[in-house]
Amino acid sequence: MSEHIRSLIDRLKTLRTNLYDHDFLLSWEQSEADLKAVLLAAEVFEAMYRANIDARPYRGGLAVSIFRDQSTRTRFSFASAASLLGLTLMDLDETKSQVAHGETVRETANMISFLTEVIGIRDDMFVGEGHEYMAEVSKAVAEGFEEGVLPQKPAILNLQCDRDHPTQTMADLMHLTKTFGSLEALRAKKIAMTWAYSPSYGKPLSVPQGIVGLMTRFGMDVVLAHPEGYGLMPEIGHIARRQASESGGTFEVTSSMEEAFADADVVYPKSWAPYEVMQRRTELLRAGQNEKLGALEQECLAMNAEHKDWECTEEMMAATRDGKALYMHCLPADISGVSCEQGEVSASVFDRYRKATYHEASHKPYVMAAMILLNRFEHPDRVLFKLLSQNRLRHHLD
Amino acid sequence: MSEHIRSLIDRLKTLRTNLYDHDFLLSWEQSEADLKAVLLAAEVFEAMYRANIDARPYRGGLAVSIFRDQSTRTRFSFASAASLLGLTLMDLDETKSQVAHGETVRETANMISFLTEVIGIRDDMFVGEGHEYMAEVSKAVAEGFEEGVLPQKPAILNLQCDRDHPTQTMADLMHLTKTFGSLEALRAKKIAMTWAYSPSYGKPLSVPQGIVGLMTRFGMDVVLAHPEGYGLMPEIGHIARRQASESGGTFEVTSSMEEAFADADVVYPKSWAPYEVMQRRTELLRAGQNEKLGALEQECLAMNAEHKDWECTEEMMAATRDGKALYMHCLPADISGVSCEQGEVSASVFDRYRKATYHEASHKPYVMAAMILLNRFEHPDRVLFKLLSQNRLRHHLD
Amino acid sequence: MSEHIRSLIDRLKTLRTNLYDHDFLLSWEQSEADLKAVLLAAEVFEAMYRANIDARPYRGGLAVSIFRDQSTRTRFSFASAASLLGLTLMDLDETKSQVAHGETVRETANMISFLTEVIGIRDDMFVGEGHEYMAEVSKAVAEGFEEGVLPQKPAILNLQCDRDHPTQTMADLMHLTKTFGSLEALRAKKIAMTWAYSPSYGKPLSVPQGIVGLMTRFGMDVVLAHPEGYGLMPEIGHIARRQASESGGTFEVTSSMEEAFADADVVYPKSWAPYEVMQRRTELLRAGQNEKLGALEQECLAMNAEHKDWECTEEMMAATRDGKALYMHCLPADISGVSCEQGEVSASVFDRYRKATYHEASHKPYVMAAMILLNRFEHPDRVLFKLLSQNRLRHHLD
Repeated sequence: MSEHIRSLIDRLKTLRTNLYDHDFLLSWEQSEADLKAVLLAAEVFEAMYRANIDARPYRGGLAVSIFRDQSTRTRFSFASAASLLGLTLMDLDETKSQVAHGETVRETANMISFLTEVIGIRDDMFVGEGHEYMAEVSKAVAEGFEEGVLPQKPAILNLQCDRDHPTQTMADLMHLTKTFGSLEALRAKKIAMTWAYSPSYGKPLSVPQGIVGLMTRFGMDVVLAHPEGYGLMPEIGHIARRQASESGGTFEVTSSMEEAFADADVVYPKSWAPYEVMQRRTELLRAGQNEKLGALEQECLAMNAEHKDWECTEEMMAATRDGKALYMHCLPADISGVSCEQGEVSASVFDRYRKATYHEASHKPYVMAAMILLNRFEHPDRVLFKLLSQNRLRHHLD
Repeated sequence: MSEHIRSLIDRLKTLRTNLYDHDFLLSWEQSEADLKAVLLAAEVFEAMYRANIDARPYRGGLAVSIFRDQSTRTRFSFASAASLLGLTLMDLDETKSQVAHGETVRETANMISFLTEVIGIRDDMFVGEGHEYMAEVSKAVAEGFEEGVLPQKPAILNLQCDRDHPTQTMADLMHLTKTFGSLEALRAKKIAMTWAYSPSYGKPLSVPQGIVGLMTRFGMDVVLAHPEGYGLMPEIGHIARRQASESGGTFEVTSSMEEAFADADVVYPKSWAPYEVMQRRTELLRAGQNEKLGALEQECLAMNAEHKDWECTEEMMAATRDGKALYMHCLPADISGVSCEQGEVSASVFDRYRKATYHEASHKPYVMAAMILLNRFEHPDRVLFKLLSQNRLRHHLD
Repeated sequence: MSEHIRSLIDRLKTLRTNLYDHDFLLSWEQSEADLKAVLLAAEVFEAMYRANIDARPYRGGLAVSIFRDQSTRTRFSFASAASLLGLTLMDLDETKSQVAHGETVRETANMISFLTEVIGIRDDMFVGEGHEYMAEVSKAVAEGFEEGVLPQKPAILNLQCDRDHPTQTMADLMHLTKTFGSLEALRAKKIAMTWAYSPSYGKPLSVPQGIVGLMTRFGMDVVLAHPEGYGLMPEIGHIARRQASESGGTFEVTSSMEEAFADADVVYPKSWAPYEVMQRRTELLRAGQNEKLGALEQECLAMNAEHKDWECTEEMMAATRDGKALYMHCLPADISGVSCEQGEVSASVFDRYRKATYHEASHKPYVMAAMILLNRFEHPDRVLFKLLSQNRLRHHLD
């Protein structure tokens, strides 16, 4: 085992990344080496954990989380990453304090960072705001560090913004490399990121955007499918197209779920709210127009209901490569007859891939730990090597 | 001191338990060796803590709590056990996430468990539900572990269900062994688990059920006393009777507090709501019938008020063995003239035993740590021995 | 670096303090040696942190916080201090449990303290209550320890009461010693603690009281300035006067902000509610008279509005020593045109001193860690020396 881990660290060592001291907020702003480094470091952490090796580079210091939206699994993944690294978890509960924008953000960002190594942020409710907030916090702590107020510059970890959800999509990518054998094996594989029907409203765009924004980096044939009117943020299309062309893959958009599923190696059927609706919603929320918000929700649910046939059924799956594409989901899925009357996926399909989706999710704590490590240490390979060499067990063997 | 600890570990080593990899959900499903092992390991942890010995078998990993009812002391006991073992505490706040039954439980149980060693659960509000929920979570993580999704199978710790409250009753048992000298010394001692008047409504049945379900294991003469209509779950009586007969003790039910107190060595006067009322309450809650719930509460309070004479007074105490039975309570007690006008116990009785009840409570963190250790390690004696031998202090001596 | 730290520890060793086993609740009840010891130990912790030295004297044990008022920065400072010391953070959320006064306080204080090294408390809402609550908790755990219920006596840390805010003011004092070079250099320096206008109501008195109660200890010329009717608790004036006379400094009260600022070396302009208003407010709150509370708030805001000229403007600053007094604030400040239309300080003044106020705040985690250490260890110098000598890094160097 430790030979395998050593070889991963050796590969990590050869990568010239730009991650040290830089925040990984949007995957399309990172180099290929950066993405590979995250995968490798995550794999090292996962292997060390499974080999019962104490992998904590820290003896104290804070890992701060700010959740501006409900969360269970991301909350626990972040807590796990903190524990893995030896950091003390501390949640900034904005209901127990008052944080707004502008000057207050700068001040609060510094006040919570005197002994802080990472600030994980989820802010995915409003388009045009989440990423900006993270960038604002990032700038604030960078200034605090330059001014000597902060003894260290905390990494800002994007736990989902309005544009991207990189800890999710990198865990998804890790899942793909494990399923197909390597990053290289993904080349020319077809992945269908498709909209799917859900009886709920307002699901963020960050996952579909993040998936097409990431999977176009590795020569995959990426198909984005959704009904008319369910488009993503316009720039995502430009980015995906450019990246596909650079990586030797393709990027297509279709309004047919069948077309997307045809011969697909991977399918990712998931509901989202149209970008245009999210924009109107954000404006109404800002204006506090609750009545109009209710009307928008009704309008959107009615619009969704016209596309109940966008469901990942056995028939749909049968049309994929050899009838057995990998089904992916960030969870929780809307499962027909289980979590709702009709939803994104039929019960039998989900059930067959349930275990796979759990595996997919299982990588998140290690991806987060990797992103923190790579941001905070200039020579992450040396840190991992030392942790491996010191040969301390995570728990006592009996 | 370390000689004493070593001898406890040696005794632990001789016990053939079934605790490794098995959840301790109901004390009456555990063997006598299991119960003795919990007591011994708890005593080791307590002695090591008092001797300033670092007893952490873990370097990271999560201890997750799920509280479906308010709690202070159990919450802090669990946090203390986590700290004692070297685990990172993480609470699943169901108001910040959404967890229901069925598929969702399986998924959530796995999602919070990727690096989790224990999940402590309190779910005592509804009869017929709490234990089932714990069993469901237990099954879910067992499957997740078998499927390779989880690198380890978290122990499920019952922090109080609708049937039993084993971390409380095992702490109570530890208190009894310390008070009377040994487990063996409890033989033929009379313990009165009696209902007592309280002006509040809906107190769980888990403590009285847990006490008669546990204390009948050791040859004690257990008397359960309550007014007509305040019965426990029917199966508890069967279990207690069988156990008493097997252990050479007795189990009797009476509707006279006086009879129970007569010559008792131990008294445990505590209010609870009748099982039959709890069942009706659960049905009304499920049906969302709030008006009828209010009526039921009034009915139940009126019923309580007919039994204000069920109070642990000085007169009552005078009738116990030599007038000085050990008074026990899981706290907080309803103390007449202190926390309410009239309640479970008179102020002078409580005051005389206040310190004793605090001691009784003080064992809980160690009992919890013991249950976790015994579930997670195949050879807990070896782990404890190593912790003792490495001779690391918990805090620096000065 | 380690030579410098060693010399600080040597100085700490020479001080005869009364801090071991005693709670630091009000700075004016502590000796000068006590205050110096806190400053020195805080400086050691800060230097060790910046030198990447693992300074944890504990391997487990709880640091409990009780916040009876909103808090962000103090909450994070306490979490940081806990992490710095190796303690597990645990918040007592009174909305998830029920804690009142009297018997319940004694019981809860013990129930949360079985493995607890420190209880940090913020209780600043009601005059005449906060300090009393802390003293009550302190007495409860002292008894629990004497009775053998608690294996250790947790330190009680005043995270702000109705009278004093010692972790803030000691951090302020540390900031002053760093700005002026030493504690001795503060002699004959003029500090103006002045009221300032704010459009909000009910700000606690603890900071101005704490500042005049502390800064009069070191030979400073302390001027307290506020409009008529904005007096502090009467005893504070007596204490400040006595202390000033003993330390060779002065203490004056004026109703002119200009007079206070004239030739001041340090200015601390900050709003507060008059003591007399706080008393009426406390009575109304106790009586649950919400209408009258609203009327009092309106009355008080109107009263505030008559003093909008009490603002720390560039003109005001120009009158200070060489026009460049040190501006201090506990944050968040009400900044004119930034956080409110008109407030305590003009934007340009605040902006010039923003970095300084962040530095001022940055000392709090170390002050808290110092107070805990000095309370819990008889020979804190030996503990710090051992931590320094063991030469363990806080995080792996790469």
